[in-house]
This record gives sequence, C-alpha cells and structure tokens, in this order.
Amino acid sequence: MNEFDLINKYFNFPSISADLGIGDDAALFNKNKNEFYAISVDTLNLNHHFTKTSDPYYLGWKSLAVNISDIVAMGGMPKYALLSLSILEPEDFWLSKFAKGLRACAKKYNVELIGGDTNKGSPSISITIIGDVLKKNVLRRDQVQIKDEIWLTNEVGYAALHFQYDSIPQKNRQTISNCLKKSAHQGFVKPMPPLDFIQKAKSLIHGAIDVSDGLAGDLQHITLKNGFGAKIYIDKIPMHKWFRENNFYELALTGGEDYQILFTAPKKNNNKINSLLKKFSMKGAMIGHVSNKKSIQYELNGQPFYLSKDGFRHFG
Amino acid sequence: MNEFDLINKYFNFPSISADLGIGDDAALFNKNKNEFYAISVDTLNLNHHFTKTSDPYYLGWKSLAVNISDIVAMGGMPKYALLSLSILEPEDFWLSKFAKGLRACAKKYNVELIGGDTNKGSPSISITIIGDVLKKNVLRRDQVQIKDEIWLTNEVGYAALHFQYDSIPQKNRQTISNCLKKSAHQGFVKPMPPLDFIQKAKSLIHGAIDVSDGLAGDLQHITLKNGFGAKIYIDKIPMHKWFRENNFYELALTGGEDYQILFTAPKKNNNKINSLLKKFSMKGAMIGHVSNKKSIQYELNGQPFYLSKDGFRHFG
Repeated sequence: MNEFDLINKYFNFPSISADLGIGDDAALFNKNKNEFYAISVDTLNLNHHFTKTSDPYYLGWKSLAVNISDIVAMGGMPKYALLSLSILEPEDFWLSKFAKGLRACAKKYNVELIGGDTNKGSPSISITIIGDVLKKNVLRRDQVQIKDEIWLTNEVGYAALHFQYDSIPQKNRQTISNCLKKSAHQGFVKPMPPLDFIQKAKSLIHGAIDVSDGLAGDLQHITLKNGFGAKIYIDKIPMHKWFRENNFYELALTGGEDYQILFTAPKKNNNKINSLLKKFSMKGAMIGHVSNKKSIQYELNGQPFYLSKDGFRHFG
Repeated sequence: MNEFDLINKYFNFPSISADLGIGDDAALFNKNKNEFYAISVDTLNLNHHFTKTSDPYYLGWKSLAVNISDIVAMGGMPKYALLSLSILEPEDFWLSKFAKGLRACAKKYNVELIGGDTNKGSPSISITIIGDVLKKNVLRRDQVQIKDEIWLTNEVGYAALHFQYDSIPQKNRQTISNCLKKSAHQGFVKPMPPLDFIQKAKSLIHGAIDVSDGLAGDLQHITLKNGFGAKIYIDKIPMHKWFRENNFYELALTGGEDYQILFTAPKKNNNKINSLLKKFSMKGAMIGHVSNKKSIQYELNGQPFYLSKDGFRHFG
C-alpha cells in the first residue's frame, strides 16, 4: 500500500469549508476575494530520506525546498514556513549548519520561518509551508484537460543518479563524468523548484504536479486519477545524454526527487510556453499529450517502450 | 539546552510580514480586517511522547488535541489540520484506531483534516493546525500586564500522575483510589482543551499560554519572559485532593501535559470570570497575580514554598 492509498483509506475525512482538501500538492483555504492560502506539510526521516552522514546544510535547504515545490506546483508564491524538528541530542555543529541551509533556501525563495518546535526523538524534519495563490490561476491536478500538451520544467534524473549511484553496474558507472557526478549530487541535495518560471507561466497552464515520486508515478496522478491517459515521447523528455547513451531511461523516469514541475497546457499556448522557457534559459520541453485512453503509453524513437516500475513507493 | 533556547539560538529568523512569529503558542498571519489565522505545529515521537503499547485511538485524539490547545491559548477557533504521519509499516488495526481517535477529536472541536502525508520512518505524528483569531481578542503571551490576576482553567496534575505512576513510592501509591487512577489515565490520554470557555472569556483576558510543559515552567514564559514575576498561592491551584494529602505539589506543578489554559486578567474582571467558570461547571480558579519582582514566589498556607524543578525539559 503506498502513501496515496494510506491517506485515502484512513484519513480522507470529508472537508466542508476548505476550498481543496486532501489529494493535491497542497490544500487551499480562503484568503480573500482573489486569493487562496495554499498549505502543505512534508517530513524527512533519518534512514529513509537522509542519513547520519548527510550534510546538514543541504538537508536544511532540501527540507524547505521540497515544501516550496508543493506551493509552486499549485501556482502559488511560498510565504511562511513552520519547522518541527526532532533530534536525539542538540549538536551545535549540526544545528548551525542545518539552520544555515534552511535560511539560505528561505532567503532565495522569500519564505519567512514563523514558527515551529523541537522535540526529542528519532531525527526527523517536518516542515509546513503556506503560500498565496491567485484563485484565477490555481494549478489543480484535476484541471488537466483532454488533448492538453504535457510539459516538464528542466530535466529529470539527476537526483536518482546520485542516490542510486552505487547500484549502477561498473560498465555504466565508468561513463559518468565528474561533471555529471557533480550535477547529480547538486540535483539530489539542492533541489531548485522553478518558482519564477511557473509564476510567469501559470496563466498558460491547466493542471500541474511536482515531480517528487518520479515522473512516471506523478504522471499517473494527473492523468489516470482524472480518468485520462497519456502518450509520452521519451526522446523529448529533457535528461542528461548519459541516460540515453546508457539506456537508463527507467532511472530518469522513476527515480524521483527531481522537484521539477510536470504540467499540462492547451496546444494553443505552445509557442508562448516555449518562449518563456527560452527566456528563463530552461531545458524544459513538451513531452507528450493527455489522451482519452486510460493508460500511459511511452514511445521511444517511434517504438512502444515499457517501464517495469511506475515510481518510487513509500511503502513498496 | 531546552526547546526554547534551541529555537531562539538557531531558528529565530527575523519575521517581516507575519503578524507574530516564533515565541508564542501559535504564529499569526493576516486573514482579513478583523481576523488573523493562527498556525502551530506539534510532533509526538515514539519512545518520547508515546510507546509501542500506547492505545492508537487515544494517540489519535491526543495528537490533535495538543495542537487544538495551542489555538485555544491564542483565543482562537481551531479550523483546519494537516497530518504528517511516519510509520515503519502500515498496520491496519493501528491505523484505523488512530484515525478513529483523530476523527473523534476533530469532530468534537469542529476541525477539518485538509491535508497531510505519510512517510516511512520511526513512528512520529506531526500535526499542523490553523485557526481563526479575532484581532481584538488575540491572547498573546506578551500582553500579560503587571498586577494582572493569574488564572488556571480546570485542574493540573492528572496527566503527570498517570505518566509517573510507577515512580511514586508505594506508601503514596496505595492511597490512589481507582477513581483517581481512571481520571489520571483520562487526563493523560484524552486532553480536553477548554475551547468553549476561552471563547466566552477571551474578551476578559490579557495574556494566555497552554499548560503543556507544566504550570511552573509555562508560568515563567508569560511572566519572566515579559520582565515580570508572579506570586502564586499553591492552596488556590485546582488539583485533586490526593496531591495535597500526599504533599505531591511538585508533581502537579511540574509534571506537564495538562493542556489547560493559564491566563491573566485585570482584577476588575474577577467576578465575570468566576461567573463564567461556574456557568461552565469548571474547577478553574484565580491562583495568584503578576508582580514587578523578576521571580516567581510560591506560597503554601502563608509560608514560602520552593520548587526543586521548573517544568518538563525536552532536552533536560
């Protein structure tokens, strides 16, 4: 049973007054006539999301960035964060580096830390984030429409390449350049949700989701869950050429933790979106389209391509 | 170093646009002309706040109730909650009982669960709560005023008596009736923040805090932190007569987890507050007053009384 099934089975209590409850990147509640507040929580746990040797600076950055990603995916501007930090013992070195990373990310994305608590317990970082969303431009997963084009910001695969480096066979591993190794490390430890781009593009977009569980899995959430399917052209998906040369598409598509945005838009907005990508010097691209078949079909160089996995599962 | 020092040292980043940042029961941000949203997060960890044998129903109740308590202490009405649950393996029995307890508490206090996530990791329950607060009646800790009377809702000590039962000497333990044992258990597993009373009383109150770390410790936060002190009459503090008969005042005053409200109010509101307590059939009482001496003086039957501890410390 994965995260989504668990939430649905046990915790999907009916929501009456909130504008959007469980089931999207963030929940929405009223701010004023024109805006919602979007709110989301994410937790990183020792031995599951980080280890004792994880650099605390990057952990501070990442624990906030993955939350910012949820607000970006709703078309929102992140604003406030609350930190709930569990640790076994307070260690000055660790805490000051962690706070520095958190603060750097907060500064980069203009987020204020307005509250939180510290607790004794197995190391765990839980962050709640709140953002503003214009009602007319909210990017809900269920606003994906049939025949929409499917887009991805930037590239996928770096975080997965870093995280699964040790399990890559020696013959493939030796083709990984130092430069790629560095990019993979940065992709894993310092995700950069594309806030500015999505803010400019939001009025051109129908639905969106952040790529946290892997492109393949997150694609299901915005297509199959809406009763649609998708056709995806793997050769169009932006990824480092190493994945193509080594035929490691599955890693790029299912590895997860990319924190890029997967979104859909009507065909008529294609040129405008491409211009915006150029303006932001971003490698994103149109990678396929929403179909009325209730399945996701991948194509690689004109041939069907089958994935053996469909994304990272929390309780696999 | 305790929780408060940790937050202050590492995470007290300056807050610019939020109306109240770190340092109170909840942070405040703007809702509309007349109201704030209040937001708070609390985490319960395995082996520190609960054990493997803790009843999951009550754990569900308590993990939401301790958050509701933070909103009540701000004079707010709890509204939305988000759950971040970490577990090692999904177990149907545990999850369904936990969800049932959470839902019962949500129903009792009219709270909607609007979001959350589940994660693999050492068992941990982190809940974020959002409430509405009238700007004119917000109960900030720093609104405590000199010469205010200090009040407590209901009684303290039950939760501590249950939690520390095994460490109570046999001669005292044998005087604990079955009825008191039951009340102590209920106090520990099913805290009931006095929402309705505080909503009615909030316009009569200056400052407030919820009693989570123990009356003695929480008293410091609303007096010493504001540059004041207090004179407290222990014989006026509502507690079960067992604590008096056994001279176990320290346990009642420092044990914590009462989730009652400690508040201050001007002397002129004394009669009105007493009438409200009567109306709600509540055992709360005026227990002392705010002084200009920067220390807290306890008195028992006209004699000075000295506490050896000053409240539960997270990182003792």
